[in-house]
Amino acid sequence: MNYDLGRRLTAELVGTALLLATVVGSGIMADTLSPDSTAVALLGNTIATGAILIVLILMFGPVSGAHFNPAVTLAFLLRGDISAAHAAVYWLVQAAGGVLGVMLAHGMFEQSLLQISTTTRTGGGQWLAEGVATFGLVSTIFLVLRFRAEAVPFAVGLFITAGYWFTASTSFANPAVTLARGLTDTFAGIAPANITAFVLAQMLAAVVAALFCRWLAPPAD
Amino acid sequence: MNYDLGRRLTAELVGTALLLATVVGSGIMADTLSPDSTAVALLGNTIATGAILIVLILMFGPVSGAHFNPAVTLAFLLRGDISAAHAAVYWLVQAAGGVLGVMLAHGMFEQSLLQISTTTRTGGGQWLAEGVATFGLVSTIFLVLRFRAEAVPFAVGLFITAGYWFTASTSFANPAVTLARGLTDTFAGIAPANITAFVLAQMLAAVVAALFCRWLAPPAD
Amino acid sequence: MNYDLGRRLTAELVGTALLLATVVGSGIMADTLSPDSTAVALLGNTIATGAILIVLILMFGPVSGAHFNPAVTLAFLLRGDISAAHAAVYWLVQAAGGVLGVMLAHGMFEQSLLQISTTTRTGGGQWLAEGVATFGLVSTIFLVLRFRAEAVPFAVGLFITAGYWFTASTSFANPAVTLARGLTDTFAGIAPANITAFVLAQMLAAVVAALFCRWLAPPAD
Amino acid sequence: MNYDLGRRLTAELVGTALLLATVVGSGIMADTLSPDSTAVALLGNTIATGAILIVLILMFGPVSGAHFNPAVTLAFLLRGDISAAHAAVYWLVQAAGGVLGVMLAHGMFEQSLLQISTTTRTGGGQWLAEGVATFGLVSTIFLVLRFRAEAVPFAVGLFITAGYWFTASTSFANPAVTLARGLTDTFAGIAPANITAFVLAQMLAAVVAALFCRWLAPPAD
Repeated sequence: MNYDLGRRLTAELVGTALLLATVVGSGIMADTLSPDSTAVALLGNTIATGAILIVLILMFGPVSGAHFNPAVTLAFLLRGDISAAHAAVYWLVQAAGGVLGVMLAHGMFEQSLLQISTTTRTGGGQWLAEGVATFGLVSTIFLVLRFRAEAVPFAVGLFITAGYWFTASTSFANPAVTLARGLTDTFAGIAPANITAFVLAQMLAAVVAALFCRWLAPPAD
Repeated sequence: MNYDLGRRLTAELVGTALLLATVVGSGIMADTLSPDSTAVALLGNTIATGAILIVLILMFGPVSGAHFNPAVTLAFLLRGDISAAHAAVYWLVQAAGGVLGVMLAHGMFEQSLLQISTTTRTGGGQWLAEGVATFGLVSTIFLVLRFRAEAVPFAVGLFITAGYWFTASTSFANPAVTLARGLTDTFAGIAPANITAFVLAQMLAAVVAALFCRWLAPPAD
Repeated sequence: MNYDLGRRLTAELVGTALLLATVVGSGIMADTLSPDSTAVALLGNTIATGAILIVLILMFGPVSGAHFNPAVTLAFLLRGDISAAHAAVYWLVQAAGGVLGVMLAHGMFEQSLLQISTTTRTGGGQWLAEGVATFGLVSTIFLVLRFRAEAVPFAVGLFITAGYWFTASTSFANPAVTLARGLTDTFAGIAPANITAFVLAQMLAAVVAALFCRWLAPPAD
Repeated sequence: MNYDLGRRLTAELVGTALLLATVVGSGIMADTLSPDSTAVALLGNTIATGAILIVLILMFGPVSGAHFNPAVTLAFLLRGDISAAHAAVYWLVQAAGGVLGVMLAHGMFEQSLLQISTTTRTGGGQWLAEGVATFGLVSTIFLVLRFRAEAVPFAVGLFITAGYWFTASTSFANPAVTLARGLTDTFAGIAPANITAFVLAQMLAAVVAALFCRWLAPPAD
């Protein structure tokens, strides 16, 4: 181990904090949901989302990097891994893909193709949760990419699996996902008026995570 | 990354769309099922099917390619990886294996060995779902085989895990499976009258996926 | 692919049959259990058992081969990988370990250390299920060991995960486990009078699996 | 296999015992919880915790060793892998990280930041459970590190996944986690008066596990 004591202690501190946040947070979430049947619904939602993320990153990672997420693209832009022009078209295409995906889900379940969500998701707790979720997601990508790149698809899928339960907002952690979920009035929706604050929290957390990872584990050069 | 911008943006578009289709679709599925106990039943069904797919592909992949699926065999035929004559016997054997498997399940649970399903599964939403499921399954196989062949068993198991929840039809995605499930009047059944449309959607989607993958990521040669 | 058409078609036949047995069998199991809360109980039982099997094989595989199962030891004896004398002491120690494990569980949950099960598990369907489960387990071990040894811990854990749901007996698939489960009058128990038939089905299936795998995929040299 | 018969039989004995403890213990746990909705709550809690452990060890393992656990740090201290001075600061930082994580969870769910748990967790069964859980966790880390280091993150996550169900205490197995869980009056809490006995059982079991692993599988050179 070549890291200095300060970095090692930081890793222990942040890691133990995220572990406890998960143990306690997922307990609160589960306990809140379980009296009615929503806990089982969230389980199905979690397993499907975690699994498809692993698959999609395995499929498309070698082609595009498999960002699927403007906050992740922003973090790669800050590292200089993608140009500003390419980042901008990534953002547009991610937003378009998100909207298409929502329409596809609605089409399969024979619902109106585009809807407006009426689910309120707001308040300091939710914004803090989006910050934690996006910080965790971007840090997962950058640190696992740095140390063991072939494990990134699994790490990302598992982080979101945990995030669905331990963050109060169920970890949107993705501005394209947030925007698109404004267009469904189902389980996963978010009212359009609540989107801006979510996206701001996500973008801010992505910047913080990029700075944190650059300090904790600088590139091997 | 050596892919041109068009392919990279396509990967981001399709990936983000499938991610959103999963987030929203599995939410709708879970929410629809959870008031009664069917959500828990689908969870057990999902976990068992995803797990056995990983195991069966690990076991039999090196022997036969582990298709277990006429739509997958069709896609490999289009790529020239299997001869038409071999594909035809694969199809016959896959259908026979499916029927034997249904009889085996019925035997273990002490039910009549062969039954006729009375579960209606029809309509545009279901057919679209089978198209999405089979397109996703075949693309998973071809792209992960292209980039990281040793991960294919896990990717396929995880894709079907997600597919059980995010597609309105619970992802049959396999003509041999569809045919065989016509012969059980239990949870997994499909009325014989509904089989043809499912199989057509699956075969069509397999062709589209084969073309899509050939364009997106041509063989390394 | 170097396997002849007969072996390839056998692989497709057996694989597709096990896939359908899982899809249909786990559906029947889940549907039967879900009206009361037993389906959720089986989910917890499944996840814990599948996970610990992966861990235990990773931990102890390099030391003892991690059989933990007289049927598996019998199959290795038939292959000549272990001597008869060593197999005999393996059997004794596996039985002793099983009994100790049951006592440990009872101690942790503050129950009488040894109990006699009153849960009837009998009939042709159950015996067929034990045959299918043990055939599948031993074939999983032998084929994955042959083709991709480092994946065996995961394959075994996932096979039992599926087996808990798709076999009518919930896949004991292990004479030491069966014997030991006779000594608990809880969820996992089996009445002592039903043990002999289970063990016979398991031992017979282990022999069949060893012969099947030797034919399907002979050793590399 | 180079291990002598005594070690091989010990591996079979301990492995089969832990397998049975899991099969029977998780059955008792699941059966006890399932009449009300607590089983589903524990499922969500389990999946989130197992997943985040894999992610956190992948992220921070190369920096700090990813202990996040004073009992694990103690075991590494006994092996001489970390100095006493560094172990002491690891302990402090792990405790601080745990408290921060609890506050973070409370903040996200808009609860009082620090609370005092009123959940009684005491008695011989619980203490035995903490001993089994910590012995299993430390043995998992040491043996998998010895034989197949790259699988440690997955093995640890899966061990705790099983431990949540098969141990009567739901596997705290970590003094920093135990201390921090004293500060939440939610699902995951433990009354402060019950903490000392849990921590003693954990520390004792870590020492036993370190001795057991040193005997079973001495370092390679």
